[in-house]
Amino acid sequence: MAKIDHVSPLAPAGFPQMPRIGGVRFAAGAAGVRYQGRDDVMLAVMRPGTAVAGVFTRSATRSAPVLDCQAKLGGASDGPAAILVNSGNSNAFTGHYGQTSVAAVTAAVAKATGVAPGRVFTASTGVIGEPLPHERITAKLDDLAGTLSDAAIEPAARAIMTTDTFAKGACATLEIDGTLVNIAGIAKGSGMIAPDMATMLVYIFTDAGFDQGALQTLLSKLTGTTFNCITVDSDTSTSDSLILCATGAAGVDATGNAAFESALHGVMLDLAQQVVRDGEGATKFVEVRVTGAANDADAKTHGLSIANSPLVKTAIAGEDPNWGRVVMAIGKSGAAADRDLLSIRFGEILVAEKGWVSPHYREADAATYMKGQDLVIAVDLGLGDGQATVWTCDLTHGYISINADYRS
Amino acid sequence: MAKIDHVSPLAPAGFPQMPRIGGVRFAAGAAGVRYQGRDDVMLAVMRPGTAVAGVFTRSATRSAPVLDCQAKLGGASDGPAAILVNSGNSNAFTGHYGQTSVAAVTAAVAKATGVAPGRVFTASTGVIGEPLPHERITAKLDDLAGTLSDAAIEPAARAIMTTDTFAKGACATLEIDGTLVNIAGIAKGSGMIAPDMATMLVYIFTDAGFDQGALQTLLSKLTGTTFNCITVDSDTSTSDSLILCATGAAGVDATGNAAFESALHGVMLDLAQQVVRDGEGATKFVEVRVTGAANDADAKTHGLSIANSPLVKTAIAGEDPNWGRVVMAIGKSGAAADRDLLSIRFGEILVAEKGWVSPHYREADAATYMKGQDLVIAVDLGLGDGQATVWTCDLTHGYISINADYRS
Repeated sequence: MAKIDHVSPLAPAGFPQMPRIGGVRFAAGAAGVRYQGRDDVMLAVMRPGTAVAGVFTRSATRSAPVLDCQAKLGGASDGPAAILVNSGNSNAFTGHYGQTSVAAVTAAVAKATGVAPGRVFTASTGVIGEPLPHERITAKLDDLAGTLSDAAIEPAARAIMTTDTFAKGACATLEIDGTLVNIAGIAKGSGMIAPDMATMLVYIFTDAGFDQGALQTLLSKLTGTTFNCITVDSDTSTSDSLILCATGAAGVDATGNAAFESALHGVMLDLAQQVVRDGEGATKFVEVRVTGAANDADAKTHGLSIANSPLVKTAIAGEDPNWGRVVMAIGKSGAAADRDLLSIRFGEILVAEKGWVSPHYREADAATYMKGQDLVIAVDLGLGDGQATVWTCDLTHGYISINADYRS
Repeated sequence: MAKIDHVSPLAPAGFPQMPRIGGVRFAAGAAGVRYQGRDDVMLAVMRPGTAVAGVFTRSATRSAPVLDCQAKLGGASDGPAAILVNSGNSNAFTGHYGQTSVAAVTAAVAKATGVAPGRVFTASTGVIGEPLPHERITAKLDDLAGTLSDAAIEPAARAIMTTDTFAKGACATLEIDGTLVNIAGIAKGSGMIAPDMATMLVYIFTDAGFDQGALQTLLSKLTGTTFNCITVDSDTSTSDSLILCATGAAGVDATGNAAFESALHGVMLDLAQQVVRDGEGATKFVEVRVTGAANDADAKTHGLSIANSPLVKTAIAGEDPNWGRVVMAIGKSGAAADRDLLSIRFGEILVAEKGWVSPHYREADAATYMKGQDLVIAVDLGLGDGQATVWTCDLTHGYISINADYRS
C-alpha cells in the first residue's frame, strides 16, 4: 500500500472547533481491522426519538453495509439510534459473507448500547473483496460503549480516515425561536489506494428536532448541490454513505426552517469541498460555474463534463489557460450548447466569447491567474437561466503515483 | 509544444504495404500551416460517380470543416470528389472566420481540380481557436493537383499526423464475382498537446462501387463497433471525421455484399485499434470484453465505463490485477448489473464470481498476466445475451507529462 506522508497543500488550517451536539455521544478505538497503531472504529449513539435520514451510492455493486442501511431507513424513529463505522476493510464484493458481517456487527452494537438492531447503521471503508474480520470489531464494542462522550467527535473523524491526509469537520450554530441550535459533521474521502477505492463517508448531527420524512427530503435536496456536485476522478465508490441525525435535544423543531436549511447546506458544502481539497494528488482547487444553460440539469451536465475531463484537469495541473479544452468538454457533454453563444472566463478574465477568443484576451494575464491555488472557470452558455456550480481538483503525476506506482 | 521523440511501444512493425485504389489519387505537400520541415496538407481526388459517406463528432461545438462536410453529404454523387486535410491548425472555435477559411480552401480545391465545391470535403486538425492561415494552403493547391498519384497514400497518411508517433494505415483485398476489390484506409489520432486536442481523422477508399445511401448506412453501422468502441481518455474532439469513398473503378458493385462488409469492418477495426495503440503515454493495449449483459447497449455502457475509469486505467499502468476497481466501474455505469451474478477474468484467469473472489484465484497468476503488453479484461454480467467489446490503453505518467508538463 502506498504511503501518504504529507498533508494536501489544499487542506484547511486545522480541524474546526466543533460544538457539542446534545443527544449524540461518540467513541473511537483501535480494533486492528487492517491498520496498526491508530483508531479504526467509531461509534455514535443518538438519544431516543432521533430522526435519521441518509443518501447512498447509486452503484449497482454497492456494499453490504449500504444495502443494510437502505433497508433500515424510514423505519421506526422512537428509540435510540447508533452508527458504527470501521476503516481498513470496505466489506464490499464479499458475497453472502458481507451480510453475515453486517449482522454480527449490528448485533454486537445492539447488545452493547441497547439500541434496536433496526436502528443500527453501519459502514465500512477500505480494502475491497476481503472478508471483514468483524470479530475484531465486536470484541471492542463494550470498550467503545463504555467510553462514549459528547466531546469525542474529532477522534471519531480520525478513526474513519483511510488515505485521507487530514480529518474533515464542519459546523454551524444558529438561533431558532430564541434557542441555539448546532450542526456538526464529519467526512472522510477521497483517497484511493489499491486495493482500496474511493469512498466518501459523511455523518452530520444536529440537536434540532425534525420530522423524519422531511429530514430525508431536505437531505436528498441539499445533496444535489453539494456532495453530488464534486468530483475528483469520475469514479464512484460502492460504499458512499451520508447520514444525517436530528436528535431534538435542543428542544426546538427545525422542520421547514429556512435558516436551518441554509446552515445545513453550508456544513454540507464545506465538507464536500474538503473532500475535493484532499483529492489524490490535488494541487489546485477548481470551482466550475455554469450559467445561461437551457436548464439547471444541463448546467450540471456541462459542469461535470468540464470537471471530469482529463484534458481540462491536466491543463490546470500544467497552469495552462487552455480554454480550447473547456470548449471541447462542453461540446462532448451531450447537453445543449451553441458554439457561437458561449463565453468562458478564468476568474474575472474574459477568455472567449461569440465562438472565438475575446479580442481583449491576453494570454499572459490568464497564465498568471492559473498559477493560483484556488481557481474559478466560469462558462455562460447564453441559452437560458439554467445554472450549476461544481468543484474538482487537477489531475497530476501525484494521482498516477498514488494509483499506479505500486503493486498490491 | 511538448516534443514527442519516440514511437509508441504499442506501434505495429511498420506502415502496411497498401494496394492502389483505382479511381483515387493522392498528393501531400508542405504548406507551413504550423509545422516546419514536414508535409502538412494532403489532397485526395476521386473519379466521377464516387459514392461518399461520412460520420462525424457529435460535439455541440464542432469545427467549421465538420459542419461543412455534414451539410454536403448526401448531395449529388455524379461528378468527381475531393478531400483536403491540413494538420497544425484545427479551424475550430474560430467564429465566423472558420467558415470563411473553409470556403476559401474549398474554392481553391475546386479551381485546381475541377471538382464541384459541393463535393469538396475538408478537415483541419491541430491548434484550436487560432484563425487558419488558409492562404498558405490555397497557395499550394496547384502544386498538389499537379502531383496527384495513386501511389501516394502513405505520404498522405504522414501529412495528416499531429502528435501521432506513427502513421496509421490498414487494407484488405477480396474477390467479388471474380473481380478483385481493394480497401485502403488511413487515420490520425490521438495525440493531444496543448493547445491542441485529440482529433481522429480517418479516410477509407475502395474501388468497389456502392449505392451512396447504402454506403452511408453501412459506415454508420460499422462505426458503432469500431471507432465508437475505442477510448483513450474519454475526451471527444470537436473535429473527429471519418469519410469512406467508393469509386467503382474495379467495375463491380459491393452494395449488400457480406464479404465486403466483413473486410471493411476489419480495416476500420485495425485503424481504430492503431489509434488506441498510439494513445498518449500508453504502455498497455487493453481489450474489454463484456458478455451476459441485459442487451448490447448495456454491454457497451459497462465496457466504456471500465475503459474510461481512471482507477482501472492506473491499475493497469501499475500492472495491478485490481478487480475491485472493475467491480466499481460496472457499478457506477448506470447499466443493469447484479453483484452476485458477475464474473471477471483477466485473460483466461477467473478472478471473481458470484459476488466474491473466486476460490481458485491466485493473485500471483494475475500479477504475472498483467505484466503483458496486450491485455484482456472479460466481464460476464450473467443477465442476458448482450455483448460488446471496447478497446483502451492505460493511464500513465506519460499522459500527464504530455498534457500537463508544459506551458502553451
